[in-house]
Amino acid sequence: MTPEEFRVAGHQLIDWIADSRATVHEKPVLAQVVPGEIRSRFESEAPGDVVSFDALLAELDNSVVPGVTQVQSPMHFGWFPSNASLSSVLGDIASSGIASLGISWESSPALTEVEEVVCDWMRQLTGLSDAWQGAIHDTASTGCLVAMLVARERATELAQNTGGLQGLSQPLMVYTSPQAHSSVAKAALLAGFGWDNIRMVDVDPDTFAMNAESLAKLMEADAAAGKVPACVVAAVGTTGTTAMDPVAAIVDAAAKHRAFVHVDAAMAGTAMLLPECRHLWEGVERSDSISWNPHKWMGTILDCSLLYMRDIDLLQRIMATNPAYLQSPTGDEATQYRDWGIPLGRRFRSLKLLFQLRLDGIEAIQARIRRDLANAKWFEEKVRAADGWEVVAPVDLQTVCVRYYPDGMSEGAELDEFTQGWARAINASGKAFLTASTLPDGWMVRVSIGVEATERQHLEDLWTLMQAAVAS
Amino acid sequence: MTPEEFRVAGHQLIDWIADSRATVHEKPVLAQVVPGEIRSRFESEAPGDVVSFDALLAELDNSVVPGVTQVQSPMHFGWFPSNASLSSVLGDIASSGIASLGISWESSPALTEVEEVVCDWMRQLTGLSDAWQGAIHDTASTGCLVAMLVARERATELAQNTGGLQGLSQPLMVYTSPQAHSSVAKAALLAGFGWDNIRMVDVDPDTFAMNAESLAKLMEADAAAGKVPACVVAAVGTTGTTAMDPVAAIVDAAAKHRAFVHVDAAMAGTAMLLPECRHLWEGVERSDSISWNPHKWMGTILDCSLLYMRDIDLLQRIMATNPAYLQSPTGDEATQYRDWGIPLGRRFRSLKLLFQLRLDGIEAIQARIRRDLANAKWFEEKVRAADGWEVVAPVDLQTVCVRYYPDGMSEGAELDEFTQGWARAINASGKAFLTASTLPDGWMVRVSIGVEATERQHLEDLWTLMQAAVAS
Repeated sequence: MTPEEFRVAGHQLIDWIADSRATVHEKPVLAQVVPGEIRSRFESEAPGDVVSFDALLAELDNSVVPGVTQVQSPMHFGWFPSNASLSSVLGDIASSGIASLGISWESSPALTEVEEVVCDWMRQLTGLSDAWQGAIHDTASTGCLVAMLVARERATELAQNTGGLQGLSQPLMVYTSPQAHSSVAKAALLAGFGWDNIRMVDVDPDTFAMNAESLAKLMEADAAAGKVPACVVAAVGTTGTTAMDPVAAIVDAAAKHRAFVHVDAAMAGTAMLLPECRHLWEGVERSDSISWNPHKWMGTILDCSLLYMRDIDLLQRIMATNPAYLQSPTGDEATQYRDWGIPLGRRFRSLKLLFQLRLDGIEAIQARIRRDLANAKWFEEKVRAADGWEVVAPVDLQTVCVRYYPDGMSEGAELDEFTQGWARAINASGKAFLTASTLPDGWMVRVSIGVEATERQHLEDLWTLMQAAVAS
Repeated sequence: MTPEEFRVAGHQLIDWIADSRATVHEKPVLAQVVPGEIRSRFESEAPGDVVSFDALLAELDNSVVPGVTQVQSPMHFGWFPSNASLSSVLGDIASSGIASLGISWESSPALTEVEEVVCDWMRQLTGLSDAWQGAIHDTASTGCLVAMLVARERATELAQNTGGLQGLSQPLMVYTSPQAHSSVAKAALLAGFGWDNIRMVDVDPDTFAMNAESLAKLMEADAAAGKVPACVVAAVGTTGTTAMDPVAAIVDAAAKHRAFVHVDAAMAGTAMLLPECRHLWEGVERSDSISWNPHKWMGTILDCSLLYMRDIDLLQRIMATNPAYLQSPTGDEATQYRDWGIPLGRRFRSLKLLFQLRLDGIEAIQARIRRDLANAKWFEEKVRAADGWEVVAPVDLQTVCVRYYPDGMSEGAELDEFTQGWARAINASGKAFLTASTLPDGWMVRVSIGVEATERQHLEDLWTLMQAAVAS
């Protein structure tokens, strides 16, 4: 395809995208398809023929879009927000257009150095000290795995250079809570610790936050038994209920064993753009690594996950490779992001953040986050005031966890089925989307507020839908 | 930013991209900047103000583009091609515009199922049997890590569910060659095997391909010593010289120990789109996993790395998470790609491949690859015929490894400095870019052919530059 052919098709595509976004509220939020339905719209044999760009756009409309759950819809209240602000979409398009190769500083100095710049801006904007340095990873799952590998190697003084995890006489232990994201346990397993060496610390029954006293006791007991407390993952904003693990108390407990503390603030990191929210991660300066996702609530299009570390030298000693074909005359003066994470090749992801900060501006982003926090408080009050409804977890951020108790149904399988049933009914209607999830006492429904397009009116509409759903 | 504001800016950006690509040959190939130079063009304090889109485009021109090494330039012969065909750029833009969230089938059925479709098309187009299933990962580094984790768990019958690598009585061993990509050893270290348990199998002194007899002997010796040969990584197209490890002999040797065989065809996978090249990975059907990067020579914009496995059930048992908040009514009928790799959240990357196949077509892609193979042969002959020049490795694909011997300089540090020097001089001119690398007997220069825009004339120009560089 020539640049001129690209120009013509690109203009059509921009219009297609603008039109799609302008009408996103008209589409079903949850894709109304069954497994295999989208697949069946494509030929099973690899295509030999080319098609026109018009035909390809028609294929997008007819065969792809019906299978897209519209997470940019103002009526999307599922999972967590996955905002793709159009400013960041432009940054993403610029990145595609520039088509850099990020395998070394030399292969794209701008890719490296703009990332350094914006990661430092984001550090400042979340109130972190300059002891932290960050890079952009795909997801917080990957960030957590990287953190856990660093924890593993720190605890063993770089056993990877000798026998790895296979040569240890005392097992390394990992601590997290059952409310932490599933990626934490996955990371621990992938890092080789083994399920038997993961401790699920209990949580406060009301706040669902990790009990730091229990953590301290578990670590003491493990140490006394000849095990090595190596890593604690604290969740700042759990996925279920946005519970806030007490970071200060956790770092205190971990410090006694020189255990590494990773703070998973995938969701709540965005809130730290507001000074008034930063008490929620008090103690974070004494942790060892922090990850959070601008690609959630902040609205930098996926994938854009920040991972900050204090000891970058250690990180690089663990991740570094320096084969001849990647050496460059710049030597140590240049940052080599390949040594800060798992993949060698990297996209120019910092442009997404640069564009969003330049075009939307931090003040508008902050104002939107405050709007969402206020909307959550408003919604919480609505639910609390209504008969039969309960708010079942603290509303620390923008997620309101609710349950409706029909007459004579206060717990158990029947209530669980009812709860999942009304959420499913709303989702199946395509009018709104909510995620059902569990707490120790059973199923509940998460109303996760914060899509860029979601205003108070949409919450009023949702509340009407919810009341109708439980009544039918 | 509203859809209408996006529309206006988007059209400007498309023109900016088309103009940039149309003039890529006019820009220095290697960015002509020193470390810190790009960083210094940005304010160190996080910005508070917003700027116009015109101002942002000017910032791209003035502060970003000078720091971009132009890997789309027809005079880029470094590393490996990192082609971003404009058709795939359009697919990438469509992905950004659709802004899907790939965390489960339900969160974007189309994201999942189009990926299933195109991964199967790519399987067919590379001549693999339907025993293979694939997914798109960011890079072959990640693919190699995933493969190694599967190898680790297969060898231990899922030790991750008990003590992990910490509970084993016999160490697991990994085998690769010193010519394999640096990401292989990195993956083995990250997977916890430990450096002491990585065997670097020797290579044929002429072809730089792994010596399968040596591999067999090492595995025998390890097994006899109570160690467990767990994983072999075979390189099909090494980074240094595109050497081809003998896959058939390697799987034979591995089979005796039930060791897992991962085939790293990051570069050479593209060649397998040509039936006449498939002899180069003969035996691949008996390996356990294969990764290759359409984002290299094939030209699907980074990041797009395919990882195929035979035993997907095993992969999912290792990678699976199924928390309540990600459960969906579809159950087992739907593919959950989060259980096929490390990250939870995934971009809609399959659109890049879909667009390229639909708009360029496989026949044009094949013709371009054949053009590059012919250009490499032509260039090889030119070099072989010239006084003082040598082709120092077999030209199996599109990379020609060369060395120039000035009078009286046949080896050693002086020749190494000379070799790196003339490559550096060409790179510093901005007129072309080449990568110096090493072989056991010293430095050489790789002429890696295959940028989409590179025609015979560009090779003639390069050859002129090279002859001038060694003469000056």
